[in-house]
Amino acid sequence: MKMIIHIFFIISLVSSISFASVQDFCVADPKGPQSPSGYSCKNPDQVTENDFAFSGLGKAGNTSNIIKAAVTPAFAPAFAGTNGLGVSLARLDLAGGGVIPLHTHPGASEALVVIQGTICAGFISSANKVYLKTLNRGDSMIFPQGLLHFQLNSGKGPALAFVAFGSSSPGLQILPFALFANDLPSELVEATTFLSDAEVKKLKGVLGGTN
Amino acid sequence: MKMIIHIFFIISLVSSISFASVQDFCVADPKGPQSPSGYSCKNPDQVTENDFAFSGLGKAGNTSNIIKAAVTPAFAPAFAGTNGLGVSLARLDLAGGGVIPLHTHPGASEALVVIQGTICAGFISSANKVYLKTLNRGDSMIFPQGLLHFQLNSGKGPALAFVAFGSSSPGLQILPFALFANDLPSELVEATTFLSDAEVKKLKGVLGGTN
Amino acid sequence: MKMIIHIFFIISLVSSISFASVQDFCVADPKGPQSPSGYSCKNPDQVTENDFAFSGLGKAGNTSNIIKAAVTPAFAPAFAGTNGLGVSLARLDLAGGGVIPLHTHPGASEALVVIQGTICAGFISSANKVYLKTLNRGDSMIFPQGLLHFQLNSGKGPALAFVAFGSSSPGLQILPFALFANDLPSELVEATTFLSDAEVKKLKGVLGGTN
Amino acid sequence: MKMIIHIFFIISLVSSISFASVQDFCVADPKGPQSPSGYSCKNPDQVTENDFAFSGLGKAGNTSNIIKAAVTPAFAPAFAGTNGLGVSLARLDLAGGGVIPLHTHPGASEALVVIQGTICAGFISSANKVYLKTLNRGDSMIFPQGLLHFQLNSGKGPALAFVAFGSSSPGLQILPFALFANDLPSELVEATTFLSDAEVKKLKGVLGGTN
Amino acid sequence: MKMIIHIFFIISLVSSISFASVQDFCVADPKGPQSPSGYSCKNPDQVTENDFAFSGLGKAGNTSNIIKAAVTPAFAPAFAGTNGLGVSLARLDLAGGGVIPLHTHPGASEALVVIQGTICAGFISSANKVYLKTLNRGDSMIFPQGLLHFQLNSGKGPALAFVAFGSSSPGLQILPFALFANDLPSELVEATTFLSDAEVKKLKGVLGGTN
Amino acid sequence: MKMIIHIFFIISLVSSISFASVQDFCVADPKGPQSPSGYSCKNPDQVTENDFAFSGLGKAGNTSNIIKAAVTPAFAPAFAGTNGLGVSLARLDLAGGGVIPLHTHPGASEALVVIQGTICAGFISSANKVYLKTLNRGDSMIFPQGLLHFQLNSGKGPALAFVAFGSSSPGLQILPFALFANDLPSELVEATTFLSDAEVKKLKGVLGGTN
Repeated sequence: MKMIIHIFFIISLVSSISFASVQDFCVADPKGPQSPSGYSCKNPDQVTENDFAFSGLGKAGNTSNIIKAAVTPAFAPAFAGTNGLGVSLARLDLAGGGVIPLHTHPGASEALVVIQGTICAGFISSANKVYLKTLNRGDSMIFPQGLLHFQLNSGKGPALAFVAFGSSSPGLQILPFALFANDLPSELVEATTFLSDAEVKKLKGVLGGTN
Repeated sequence: MKMIIHIFFIISLVSSISFASVQDFCVADPKGPQSPSGYSCKNPDQVTENDFAFSGLGKAGNTSNIIKAAVTPAFAPAFAGTNGLGVSLARLDLAGGGVIPLHTHPGASEALVVIQGTICAGFISSANKVYLKTLNRGDSMIFPQGLLHFQLNSGKGPALAFVAFGSSSPGLQILPFALFANDLPSELVEATTFLSDAEVKKLKGVLGGTN
Repeated sequence: MKMIIHIFFIISLVSSISFASVQDFCVADPKGPQSPSGYSCKNPDQVTENDFAFSGLGKAGNTSNIIKAAVTPAFAPAFAGTNGLGVSLARLDLAGGGVIPLHTHPGASEALVVIQGTICAGFISSANKVYLKTLNRGDSMIFPQGLLHFQLNSGKGPALAFVAFGSSSPGLQILPFALFANDLPSELVEATTFLSDAEVKKLKGVLGGTN
Repeated sequence: MKMIIHIFFIISLVSSISFASVQDFCVADPKGPQSPSGYSCKNPDQVTENDFAFSGLGKAGNTSNIIKAAVTPAFAPAFAGTNGLGVSLARLDLAGGGVIPLHTHPGASEALVVIQGTICAGFISSANKVYLKTLNRGDSMIFPQGLLHFQLNSGKGPALAFVAFGSSSPGLQILPFALFANDLPSELVEATTFLSDAEVKKLKGVLGGTN
Repeated sequence: MKMIIHIFFIISLVSSISFASVQDFCVADPKGPQSPSGYSCKNPDQVTENDFAFSGLGKAGNTSNIIKAAVTPAFAPAFAGTNGLGVSLARLDLAGGGVIPLHTHPGASEALVVIQGTICAGFISSANKVYLKTLNRGDSMIFPQGLLHFQLNSGKGPALAFVAFGSSSPGLQILPFALFANDLPSELVEATTFLSDAEVKKLKGVLGGTN
Repeated sequence: MKMIIHIFFIISLVSSISFASVQDFCVADPKGPQSPSGYSCKNPDQVTENDFAFSGLGKAGNTSNIIKAAVTPAFAPAFAGTNGLGVSLARLDLAGGGVIPLHTHPGASEALVVIQGTICAGFISSANKVYLKTLNRGDSMIFPQGLLHFQLNSGKGPALAFVAFGSSSPGLQILPFALFANDLPSELVEATTFLSDAEVKKLKGVLGGTN
């Protein structure tokens, strides 16, 4: 009899403090306003286990393209549960000869682990020094935030890697697309990269850029 | 002739700004003093590509133990290049029936991707709600910072997963070891967990605890 | 005459820069969307001194329960003015024999000061080391973020303490409630804690858990 | 023919990852809710280059006032693109004899560079130590976050400086206005500053304060 | 027999991951170099429970002084365990008529709880608005980071409060000491505060300032 | 007589709390160890006003080089007082036709204000969208962290701008130097940028790269 009363008080204690849990997580609600800290939070009452899981990394990306490679991101809001939690994932598929071109992540450092194949990876520091490694299955490498880096299949068969980022929104700026896949006038590309007019116009043609 | 002079000035420009690169990264120097932000930085002149790579995740951990599982961390300072960069990795090996017991990472959220097998994973929120998923190859899941969670091999063969953390020093507190593998007096364990004296003493015996 | 004009310009100067003050604080508006950084901000024009004050810590919590203790939190949004300001408070009441069971705060470290009575407090590190102190009136102790800790009345009369957190939403996960006060299946609790089936089922019975 | 297909896949790759870009920036939408991290983000589709530019610093502030000086801020939301990006600007105009009175920025440190004239600037540390410099054209100085500091035209002609802050919302609390331009009762001002009743009432009169 | 082997492996597992615990905490080592993130960390092997406890708040500060009040801080490195953990404490003693003069904490917001007596407390926003409350035993109040605030004994007997900060090094700049207890030349104090020469010189005399 | 005693107690109060000031600032000591949070702090007793000032921005950089431009940074440790304070400065000099090539700052966003001349500036988002502005004297622009951007003198005479960063160590990676001024093998540059072998080798020749 006394125990029943005790349980009542415990349940009461638990619920009286449960509102503190709203900031255990902040599942992305892409329909709400965004802030500098990320997406709005989905109502915790409507959050389910599915918000914390993501199955999109289970399938190889389509590598039938000019880079023979694919990046499959698991960032917020697609992987809604990562919002604001400071970590996210992506999958890299590289067919034979495939390459993830030079790119940066403005918002986070990246850690990579090779699951299959052999990958030549590297990054360039602010001092223009190159750090280059050939990575086999199980090898991992870290790419500091904001620095240019690349991954290239240097083995014989396909390669697969998973990468992790220290942000739920690391961003991704791929250098050749940034240079040649938009309307930045050719003369500005040339003046700011030292590339020749012919080279710039050729690559704008290939990558869909204008001007 | 003029070009040679130009090149000289460019090189000069590059080197004049190169000191800014010291904070591109801060490779852990475990012999230097630590600060709240992490390990001291290795002299940038002595940093090589090997500081940014780690091969320890390539080999299965030894699962011949009571939990039939192993955690192989790639944190700072072992994976020296991650120091201060806000991301790190670990490998989980689970033999048949293996389990990573309930644990927390005080310093970071965790994202997991299954490479092989089937894993039943879950976490418990501050509101005592359970979020439980069965994850197959390629499935990923996020575990919010500081919350109790576990991974259990729920398939037939061995399971393998890689996990990422939003810190180079996420920490790892494994619940049964925290409770039963030290000298916290039994009566305090009992008073603060509601467990019985017999249960506590039995598990202290199994896990090497005293008092 | 000239002075009047001067004052006009000063007032003008003050108001022209006053919009910068909107981020002096961000009083929680619990009806607005939440973000990873906390609650939406109440319109500054409607903020009053009452938003920065809280009277809920002035009254002893009800300790007529199984733990003979009570936690009274002063977090956002109840203590609305703390939202986003990186500090909050709570009150601990421990009747004779009372105990705050093992728990963690996923989002902040905790500092405690004893106001009345004697408290035995401790925390367990990631290395499973125990740090244990008996605290008297005026003694304070710090519990690092995310680590298991407890407070227990080890004196004769009631004990009172105030605790502070380095976040307006520190969270609170109480171990026995996390383990035994929800629907996490008994076999999973057992597999991930090494506890016996009998012990788990007994405590689920006491604390209201199912499965 | 094959190339066209390739380009299609590249464009597809680019757009498939482009959603990650929403957190490249978070242009302030002053009509949306604010959070502790800043203003809501304007819809990225409606963001233009004008959101990242600001012309308000091009014109001298009106220095026909009691301090013979003007502060022209370029903070969020006026300079909308700075929201959440951790840096903002302001312009200081000081006519002959002009002074920016003692003030603090609660939310950021300040770096100043003199464009014209001579400025005597200083700050006071928590240890009550004074750091004082006379700055000429091209000289710069740093004022640590939250500490009282001032700038005073110590040259013959007008002075101009630009200042930068490590936040898009640094705040600005000007000491004499904080003390004398509001309804804080005179006896409280006196008790908390040691100033005399006559002095307080005189300055409340000059600066528009009441009580 | 088999169990003994199992235990061996568990102990091995625990120790193999224990190095991760060095960043559970970073107890201040005041003899090591400081960094922007705080004091160097004491060797974890030499850390004891005493590093996490502090007894200095148990004794009333000496209020036999001009302000009839005392602040007893429990910051790093005095309260060594708080270093880098984002929270610290202080004790305020106010004799009858005592006052903590207008001051700011450049590095953290402050939360106060009244233990004894009646305190009139207030802060001034960047918009020069005053937020003023009379607080009785058990009442709490929050003072946003970097804003001028004060506490004054408005009751009949002595008053006691504990305050918490969202940093282990919040700093403390007391306005009248910053203005009048150093060598900042009187003419600069006057020009930057609008105070009269007589008032400045009088208070410099009282508080030990020169120039 | 009584007053003298009072003053003694005040001075005592001031000095008893003055140790809190060590974290007002952390002037860079380049001879001490670095941490992820920046340089070690110079002993506060040896800090002078000169540590908070910097005269290097007062002189035009040498623009007699291939880019007809110069960047003069005022970062830590050169501008020692900025260390850890989250803001720094630089000066841009652009002779007629001068250009700061495409570059990124991995560690901070940048705000620019034009002092003299006309500058065409732009940045490219992760979505490959171009944000381009022509800026005249007094105009300012913000460049989000980690994104490629450039500044080009589009006027007739020389141009001068000051830029600010939200970090004391923003870093600077200049694209053509990162690509062509080091030993990254030409075939890797080509594979990861789509540039032709002839173009890469030509620019490696101009900029001093090898391999």
